[in-house]
Amino acid sequence: MTEPLKVGVAGLGTVGASVVRVLKQKADAIAARAGRPIVVTAVSARDRGRNRGLDLDGVAWHMDPAQLARSKDVDVVVELIGGAEGAARACVETAIEFKRPVVTANKALLARHGVSIARSAEEADVPVGFEAAVAGGVPVIKTLREGLAGNDVTRVIGILNGTCNYILTRMEHDRIGFAECLSDAQKLGYAEADPTFDVGGFDAAHKLALLTSLAFGTETDVDGIYVEGITSITPFDLEMAEELGYRVKLLGVTTRTSGGIEQRVHLAMLPRDSAIARVDGVTNAVEIDADVVGALVLAGPGAGGDATASAVIADIVDIARGVKTPVFGVPAAKLAHPKRAPMGTHEGGYYIRLSVLDRPGAAAAIATRMAEQRISLRSIVQRGREPNFDRPSVEPVAVVLITYATNEAALRAALDAIEADGHIDGVPQVIRIEKR
Amino acid sequence: MTEPLKVGVAGLGTVGASVVRVLKQKADAIAARAGRPIVVTAVSARDRGRNRGLDLDGVAWHMDPAQLARSKDVDVVVELIGGAEGAARACVETAIEFKRPVVTANKALLARHGVSIARSAEEADVPVGFEAAVAGGVPVIKTLREGLAGNDVTRVIGILNGTCNYILTRMEHDRIGFAECLSDAQKLGYAEADPTFDVGGFDAAHKLALLTSLAFGTETDVDGIYVEGITSITPFDLEMAEELGYRVKLLGVTTRTSGGIEQRVHLAMLPRDSAIARVDGVTNAVEIDADVVGALVLAGPGAGGDATASAVIADIVDIARGVKTPVFGVPAAKLAHPKRAPMGTHEGGYYIRLSVLDRPGAAAAIATRMAEQRISLRSIVQRGREPNFDRPSVEPVAVVLITYATNEAALRAALDAIEADGHIDGVPQVIRIEKR
Repeated sequence: MTEPLKVGVAGLGTVGASVVRVLKQKADAIAARAGRPIVVTAVSARDRGRNRGLDLDGVAWHMDPAQLARSKDVDVVVELIGGAEGAARACVETAIEFKRPVVTANKALLARHGVSIARSAEEADVPVGFEAAVAGGVPVIKTLREGLAGNDVTRVIGILNGTCNYILTRMEHDRIGFAECLSDAQKLGYAEADPTFDVGGFDAAHKLALLTSLAFGTETDVDGIYVEGITSITPFDLEMAEELGYRVKLLGVTTRTSGGIEQRVHLAMLPRDSAIARVDGVTNAVEIDADVVGALVLAGPGAGGDATASAVIADIVDIARGVKTPVFGVPAAKLAHPKRAPMGTHEGGYYIRLSVLDRPGAAAAIATRMAEQRISLRSIVQRGREPNFDRPSVEPVAVVLITYATNEAALRAALDAIEADGHIDGVPQVIRIEKR
Repeated sequence: MTEPLKVGVAGLGTVGASVVRVLKQKADAIAARAGRPIVVTAVSARDRGRNRGLDLDGVAWHMDPAQLARSKDVDVVVELIGGAEGAARACVETAIEFKRPVVTANKALLARHGVSIARSAEEADVPVGFEAAVAGGVPVIKTLREGLAGNDVTRVIGILNGTCNYILTRMEHDRIGFAECLSDAQKLGYAEADPTFDVGGFDAAHKLALLTSLAFGTETDVDGIYVEGITSITPFDLEMAEELGYRVKLLGVTTRTSGGIEQRVHLAMLPRDSAIARVDGVTNAVEIDADVVGALVLAGPGAGGDATASAVIADIVDIARGVKTPVFGVPAAKLAHPKRAPMGTHEGGYYIRLSVLDRPGAAAAIATRMAEQRISLRSIVQRGREPNFDRPSVEPVAVVLITYATNEAALRAALDAIEADGHIDGVPQVIRIEKR
């Protein structure tokens, strides 16, 4: 057996602590798989005094992660600090400068600076592993980067944020509102005190940016992603979805269209018997459609210290085995500059919930505005209160429209016209229907 | 860019033809991913005259696959002949002898001779890829061999044979019998003229043997697998399963128990809302339970020329990239000799369908025999014909028992005693209930 591989872990949160613990507990088994012992020789974290339940005897402590990355004690740098800039970025860039392989769970950093990191990693001839950055312990990066080398990917759809999927699953199951559900999720530790990053769709967008680059061989383009969060969802929408044969998920979707690459994160209705629709709770799942293999589905724990540590350790073992795959599957110089398909050209069906003021001509006006944009309606459902046959109510009534495939620009034009007509109250709820 | 990687393809059936076609059609994209061009330089098949729709201009033709494996034109040998012995084995062994990396879809060969192949491949310092041998295009080998290096796997369960899953799904959906369904599957090309290998569970057993070695770091032990096929299944069993909240699948299961490694292939009832239970038709799916990551599910096309070719090409690209992972994840010398857990110690719940002769004391005798073996019954259902309150019928009646967890030896003893009592007609149907 050759020399041990010396690992420096920057960031000792739940994931970092789990990485250190598992590498020690399973040292023999991991050495057998890696072909050499793997030893944590250095760590870095802000608070040295905190009890993390780790035996760090003989492990060098660096206050500065970049210092750890420069240290002679370290062959591989594991960055688990997080954030697109600052200490995390400095740590990764220093490691590459010193020709040390990097393993990171940092989706924000790679979504923002992945291309320049890939370029400098190639110049330094060091691998960068980031399995842990997307879908926690699910090997979706490995599958896209290595397992589909003979394929052209056509679409990737994924449940990429466990917090959102937990909230949607519970709202559906317990028929409670978004705010109550979010507050529960925060109490249970499934949501942050400031939940914006998760429920606003931004976390999923960072992950989607990485999947897009791997799927289509393009430069990461996180600013090209259309992002909506889940805060507008109501129990009524979830009930209607159920009745119509759908389930509602926060999806990240990336597809090639004739107009370019369409990247989007938003609530979507999926046929209830599709594999992704059935994924509940904090589980993550990704479906990859590719021309040679067909459709693959991968699902598993998308978060949590141990599940994420599992992905980090797999990347470290790949490095110990000498695996050196280009960061985004092809050399950085070959990554294409992505042409963005504008959201207006998105094609698909829509669920639309309108709060319609119940007065003569409202229904006719709405139908006319849809027809003007050549949008065909598959169904119209009116709900929300008991019908009153004596006279129209002064209270608005919920009307749900399901459209056949149309495009987003036409739909937006129709909704603008309907709003301008003054027949509706508040903002229309629009949920895209994703094809199986 | 470096020298092209020269590939020899032995076996030009649907998979081989697809490999040759895709490598040519996507040469540029694959070269970008692999870091060098990949070119098919030699092929081997029995019938040279057959039109396979392939452009084989400039490609060397070898009548003997071992000759191809020896040829100087070849850097990597792709074996797609099949079978545990004969030409396939000679081809793979010759390739390794000549220090050429091997890619194979041959589960029978690896299930029988995987350990000796792993040993000689290590001595020759060449990799052996076999992603295509299990679950077609689904990257389950890569996941077990590389993606879970920090985990101890506790159980793998899988739908590993598309033919069986197609038959079971159709029987359930169309409420038709096994024989009729098999005959349809044969007409559609989903089942062979001699279906024994598939419907007898042997194909699934070969695949399971490979999953076991990867999951537990043990020598392949295909003879240690308990194998039952699907031929005994009836529409009545499927209806009862539905009523009881289960679905019936042919499963390969491998687990670590206190008594050793339990490997089994048989019909199993799964809770109908579990991920594996929902997998329909020719799709394959594998669930891996591991201590660090939790449960992963991978699903996708388990057969077909293109899906399998996708896996073959991914292995070739890994070889082009210089990846050299031990065949079963750890060096062959470290593979443990597996201790077999005898099937008698298997623990779990059971579905039992008895054809009971309707006479006084039958029910009491059956209940007594179960109690003697300390088997608790969760439910008893009597079905099959209209009740006759005037007098017992001379025709047997179907009685279904669902047991709480017990062990196989106790169950077999109870069933033997029930048979000896003479209250039942024919062979009891026994279907194991697999935990989520």
